[in-house]
Amino acid sequence: MSERQLHLGAILTGVGNDQYNWRHPDVPGDASVDIDWYITNAKLAEDAKFDLVFIVDSPFITPDTSPHFLNRLEPLTLLSAVAGHTSRIGLVGTLTTSYWEPYNVARQFGSLDHISRGRAGWNVVTTGLEGAARNYGREEHFDHAVRYERAQEFVEVVQGLWDSYEDDAFPRDKQSGLFLHKDKQHRLDHKGRHFAVAGPLALTRSRQGQPVIFQAGDSDEGRNLGAHIAEATFAASPDFASGQQYYADLKARAAALGRDADAIKVLPGLFPLIAETDEEAHRIERERAENLDIDKLLVQLGRAFNYHDFSQYDLDAPFPDLTGVTLNSYKGAAERIIRTAREEKLTLRQAAQRGQNPGGKGFVGSPETIANEIERWFTGRAADGFNIVVGAPDEFALFRERVVPILQSRGLFRTEYAHGTLRGHLGLPVPEHRHAAASLAVAAE
Amino acid sequence: MSERQLHLGAILTGVGNDQYNWRHPDVPGDASVDIDWYITNAKLAEDAKFDLVFIVDSPFITPDTSPHFLNRLEPLTLLSAVAGHTSRIGLVGTLTTSYWEPYNVARQFGSLDHISRGRAGWNVVTTGLEGAARNYGREEHFDHAVRYERAQEFVEVVQGLWDSYEDDAFPRDKQSGLFLHKDKQHRLDHKGRHFAVAGPLALTRSRQGQPVIFQAGDSDEGRNLGAHIAEATFAASPDFASGQQYYADLKARAAALGRDADAIKVLPGLFPLIAETDEEAHRIERERAENLDIDKLLVQLGRAFNYHDFSQYDLDAPFPDLTGVTLNSYKGAAERIIRTAREEKLTLRQAAQRGQNPGGKGFVGSPETIANEIERWFTGRAADGFNIVVGAPDEFALFRERVVPILQSRGLFRTEYAHGTLRGHLGLPVPEHRHAAASLAVAAE
Repeated sequence: MSERQLHLGAILTGVGNDQYNWRHPDVPGDASVDIDWYITNAKLAEDAKFDLVFIVDSPFITPDTSPHFLNRLEPLTLLSAVAGHTSRIGLVGTLTTSYWEPYNVARQFGSLDHISRGRAGWNVVTTGLEGAARNYGREEHFDHAVRYERAQEFVEVVQGLWDSYEDDAFPRDKQSGLFLHKDKQHRLDHKGRHFAVAGPLALTRSRQGQPVIFQAGDSDEGRNLGAHIAEATFAASPDFASGQQYYADLKARAAALGRDADAIKVLPGLFPLIAETDEEAHRIERERAENLDIDKLLVQLGRAFNYHDFSQYDLDAPFPDLTGVTLNSYKGAAERIIRTAREEKLTLRQAAQRGQNPGGKGFVGSPETIANEIERWFTGRAADGFNIVVGAPDEFALFRERVVPILQSRGLFRTEYAHGTLRGHLGLPVPEHRHAAASLAVAAE
Repeated sequence: MSERQLHLGAILTGVGNDQYNWRHPDVPGDASVDIDWYITNAKLAEDAKFDLVFIVDSPFITPDTSPHFLNRLEPLTLLSAVAGHTSRIGLVGTLTTSYWEPYNVARQFGSLDHISRGRAGWNVVTTGLEGAARNYGREEHFDHAVRYERAQEFVEVVQGLWDSYEDDAFPRDKQSGLFLHKDKQHRLDHKGRHFAVAGPLALTRSRQGQPVIFQAGDSDEGRNLGAHIAEATFAASPDFASGQQYYADLKARAAALGRDADAIKVLPGLFPLIAETDEEAHRIERERAENLDIDKLLVQLGRAFNYHDFSQYDLDAPFPDLTGVTLNSYKGAAERIIRTAREEKLTLRQAAQRGQNPGGKGFVGSPETIANEIERWFTGRAADGFNIVVGAPDEFALFRERVVPILQSRGLFRTEYAHGTLRGHLGLPVPEHRHAAASLAVAAE
């Protein structure tokens, strides 16, 4: 295998999910529903040779939901529209296995993979918010363990459907009139614990074989799911040490299942705070912290606990005892918040403020400082790369124009694309076709 | 209301669903999975001032399925990709209410409506093929009557979700920090016979208010559903007289429900056979008929009867007695085939051959003949327009370059777009917002 390569993704969240990004004078108030905003930023990320753009998602909102989530384009339609205005960058969309049909998901991501000529990725989530159930005819959300069990079977079904046709199934011979070799169309006939899907899917494979599977869960069940199905993960660790722990743990779990540990890339989400100097960055950080509305921070904190009401507790007392609050929501994140609060003896206010920087400590400073920290995580095997939240235009410009060139000058990041598919960028193999040992699949170009 | 206006749609079916189109030298063999083929033809249709492009669909295939359906892009991802390469033409996609979740459908069509800036339409179908059930974890397909009952409730839920936000819900005031007026976000809290959906949807309305609802069912239940929910219908009638009957019947059913009969447009599907002269067109028609593979025609005929096996009958005996074959598939089409065969005393072979021209009799001839026939259906109130199947490039060119100018010179069809939304093109009103009597919705521009 060639030298290990840093990967960069751009998380496109329109107006953003914190309290200050949407109020930046250069952020359009309707960015989250304006396809031109996404296209513009995807092109900027492509110009900077990013591996991919990434669309987060969730199927449940309340009046207190954060700005981007309140009103936004749906990931698959959005990415299909972006596909035609880009040519190299990967297109990764989030979709829940709890409230979709595998047949429809296989069709839509497979179709995006054709539309983008091999650049599609699917971020598999199980939905953390119990309220989502009521948007889908259910009184109760699936239990956390059941969600992960369903997710694994769901992905296996979708991947089976993606192999419905062998790569040489369609001779399309106009002379003889032979359009399809009927014996190269395969039914799946899956009958599992949660799903029964016959197939076949009315779609051939793309030039990268199948869309890339991303996954983000950080709980024990989440890591096991990642070890089984993920080709890249998106889970954010709060600091370098836990980043290293997660990295080693996930790859060990994958290896224990007989998988190649290099074929699962660890790409945490990151919202760096970059300014000309470290001092300036820390000044902005303090200024933002002072202006934050603590009530909104409590709502955001509560999101990981299925919108648990934290306003009932004393802000400056130690973080409350949540014994009895079931962690059926974003379980990994909730467990981490509780653990950190206990270990660092945080008050509720401090824990809520901590939540505003998903990238954790260390990613605040000058371009050089940010590049150093990225290099440290990469060489220290706390990450194979990062998914960077695209904030205001000037902040994203600092990352692309000041941080990326440092990473390039150090030989960590590409200066030109060497491939045309998402698998190619990420150094992932084209999945072997289950119905053709000697498949005609083209290599990831 | 202004003068009655003819409407034209372009049905994009890639390689097509008959036996000869894909073998045309200028039709790319992979047209159905090549987004550039769709974009090219959508732009040609837009240059010719068509109202819309139309994508058919079905969630079930077998090895005997016709060419386009065997391997094709999924409608919503496809249309989202086409949106960015067009600016005026409407984008109508087919999606079944039998195997989707209303919340996901509302999000995706609502998102397409934003991405296209008010050009989305949804062709509501219930799925005719029983085999589809096995792609969605069910042993049995929903009964025909249940399908239509579910469809009506499904559409009502989706339309309710589309009104989750009042049009002035988002002040996005950067000075004051007020992003959302929380009281202008509305839950649906629908609890019906088939669906329970709480909402709200995380999406505002588009500039046309809501996507346009198309519908195609021709059975009694299908017409009733159309009368309730359709703003345009796509059902093909086999001849002028039944076209008039359908037109009058559908509008009467709509009027009986208190709807404005002008607010439901009848736009049958049509595959005209156009040549320089009538003689040449009829020669091509005979030539094609002689070269048709009767076995494949029988499979196509069987599709309306849930792939009933017609190869068991004598080809040249009278059309078989199908008593005992349940019509739970494409019921309207199946009933029409049986009725026509009885009335015209057709053999099985003749009935199978008849199936190859979905537009019915009369649409074979020179550009002048085709234009005359279109005018006759339009002025005789058998149609408000047509959805034209896009075949080989030369055939589509004859329609755009020779038939359309005749229709324009007669004042029947627009020479320039007067609107920017699909509702605008079709002369349909912007739906009033259910939560704001004096809505700020912009008029269909």
